[in-house]
Amino acid sequence: MYEDVTAIPPDSVGLVTPARLQFTEPLALTSGGVLSSYELVYETYGSLNRNASNAVLVCHALSGSHHIAGYHAPDDAKPGWWEHHVGPGKSLDTTRLFVVACNNLGSCFGSTGPASINPATGRPYGPDFPMITVRDWVESQARLADRLGIDRWLAVIGGSLGGMQALQWAIAYPQRIAHAIIIAAAPKLTAQNIAFNEVARQAILTDPDFHGGRFYDQGTEPRRGLRLARMLGHITYLSDDIMRQKFGRDVRGGKLNFDYQVAFEVESYLRHQADTFVGRFDANTYLLMTKALDYFDPAGETGGDLAAALRGVKADSLVLAFTSDWRFAPARSREIVKALHDNDLNVSYAEITAPHGHDAFLMRIPRYTEILSAYLERALASAA
Amino acid sequence: MYEDVTAIPPDSVGLVTPARLQFTEPLALTSGGVLSSYELVYETYGSLNRNASNAVLVCHALSGSHHIAGYHAPDDAKPGWWEHHVGPGKSLDTTRLFVVACNNLGSCFGSTGPASINPATGRPYGPDFPMITVRDWVESQARLADRLGIDRWLAVIGGSLGGMQALQWAIAYPQRIAHAIIIAAAPKLTAQNIAFNEVARQAILTDPDFHGGRFYDQGTEPRRGLRLARMLGHITYLSDDIMRQKFGRDVRGGKLNFDYQVAFEVESYLRHQADTFVGRFDANTYLLMTKALDYFDPAGETGGDLAAALRGVKADSLVLAFTSDWRFAPARSREIVKALHDNDLNVSYAEITAPHGHDAFLMRIPRYTEILSAYLERALASAA
Repeated sequence: MYEDVTAIPPDSVGLVTPARLQFTEPLALTSGGVLSSYELVYETYGSLNRNASNAVLVCHALSGSHHIAGYHAPDDAKPGWWEHHVGPGKSLDTTRLFVVACNNLGSCFGSTGPASINPATGRPYGPDFPMITVRDWVESQARLADRLGIDRWLAVIGGSLGGMQALQWAIAYPQRIAHAIIIAAAPKLTAQNIAFNEVARQAILTDPDFHGGRFYDQGTEPRRGLRLARMLGHITYLSDDIMRQKFGRDVRGGKLNFDYQVAFEVESYLRHQADTFVGRFDANTYLLMTKALDYFDPAGETGGDLAAALRGVKADSLVLAFTSDWRFAPARSREIVKALHDNDLNVSYAEITAPHGHDAFLMRIPRYTEILSAYLERALASAA
Repeated sequence: MYEDVTAIPPDSVGLVTPARLQFTEPLALTSGGVLSSYELVYETYGSLNRNASNAVLVCHALSGSHHIAGYHAPDDAKPGWWEHHVGPGKSLDTTRLFVVACNNLGSCFGSTGPASINPATGRPYGPDFPMITVRDWVESQARLADRLGIDRWLAVIGGSLGGMQALQWAIAYPQRIAHAIIIAAAPKLTAQNIAFNEVARQAILTDPDFHGGRFYDQGTEPRRGLRLARMLGHITYLSDDIMRQKFGRDVRGGKLNFDYQVAFEVESYLRHQADTFVGRFDANTYLLMTKALDYFDPAGETGGDLAAALRGVKADSLVLAFTSDWRFAPARSREIVKALHDNDLNVSYAEITAPHGHDAFLMRIPRYTEILSAYLERALASAA
């Protein structure tokens, strides 16, 4: 047992335990619905300083969770999903920062979501769980901040859908966020982005095991649909180049079989990714997360004028994009940068050369680490 | 009735009737399988001249057919799929050319395919239909040419998977093709291309109504899977730009409903495209066509050296690509051009500015028409 524990690297936050908070004040949602009560599961790393000026919120993307660093058990195969960025001496230095990561409402890793019991019926919400938007998440995160005694975040940070939350924080709570770090994000989805999401949703919705979203009651789940959704997602997370580097046209076993078994390595990869996703992710959550992506469009309320939508923003920003990301290409990040500039805000922008596509935001890339570290270093210095 | 007939435009080939030929000499396939006998359905437009020097073969892509021009009935809603290119006075001028278009083996529009009756069992082939490759198609088309008295094509023309057939003709039958016209094609698929095909296949293969490919016997078909495959296909056929132009983020009915019905116009488009595809296309054919795409790789036999694979080619070539095509981007066409140049062959290349993505090869685009017309004009002149 002790040997297992010592396997945790010294620059890790180590063993962590998720925390849970109950919220009983009803949450009015963008959709018009109301969540009468809910729970949020979260993790924190480091200590909140006396004047609560060192708190950083990390927002997760579609399939992410609150577990961004450390290990839940000594024998965990993998640490949290941002382990290389979060820990003592890392870009999010937990010896100096108080890092908070919260599982989003509607997700399936502990916070209230479609698989949770609906107090009104005593059965899982399923399709009765209300549609949640990025704005709703920020609202729920603000209440979490209240409970944690955090008036103002030193930074709100996120990649992809998480970056949209960071941007929304800057819009919704200008007084409560000093820095927004918006990584591999976009101010809204394109028609093509929405189209990919729609195919993924249709895969789930038309799976006979979906049962209109009430599959929990049937002791089943729409595995086929979720599997397809995940395969498709992975294609859009990777660049064409990294796929070529990783798989090329390599034939599995070196010989074509002329059947519908795996022929090429890339097929094997996709099937494996999909198979491991099913069983650990909820299909209703997948639907809900893709809709939150589709709906995000702060400029929708200002006639398409993003600069106008950002008029109230006060935060300084760091916007990061990755050269090979075609899901949210650098040009999409530059739209955010331009709109921030149009409002005379301090904004740093970096386009990081990386072959990994959209997935780069999850990767250990030296330049990425350097920029994030340097930016947070300055943020801490100016907050001191 | 006469009024209907006069509705057919004068520059159309008019009413056409598909022809059918039975082939009883067994066809040995790349996969090692054998097709003991088969039928090919085809259409011809114009007349073969005395020395049979004016014959042009048009090869179709994944979901295409032999019906490329004219109408099968006076009240047909639409003409053949290349009507704007094929007819009297058009780029493929049927007053001077003898145009042949054949439904590929394994397809579902009349030629022998998975839905045909297997003479060995008296039931539809289904999964027993052998895997067909681009090389096999060219072999079957060569036999059709024999039967039509065509020793040598003035040109073999095709877009996408059809362009691969044109290239394969140049490789396999250097003496039987004067010109190869290779449009929006690639010398082989990338890992990303294969990945998209694999998701489409998995959608079909995992549909409970697929029944291992024997759905004909069950009086059903894998509609859900085929629908998803088609939706996904359409995303890759269109460019991000044309999607933005066509749909933007327009909300259907002007108001978000916060449910899983159609929210954005692009979703409506995809669902409509998918719904009209199902019922007119065979799921086993879809599987087979995507595999033919995946397997095509002439340089696979020359250690990845495309120039070496094209060493025996004698045809002149016209290679066309469309700027916004990301499925088979212009860079992929230029690989073909380079390999042809490396063999000191005459090759013309044009990159046509078009916003439509891969679908551009099916579109009426003035510059495209001009180039095709001029090239075939010269080809005819040099053959005369």
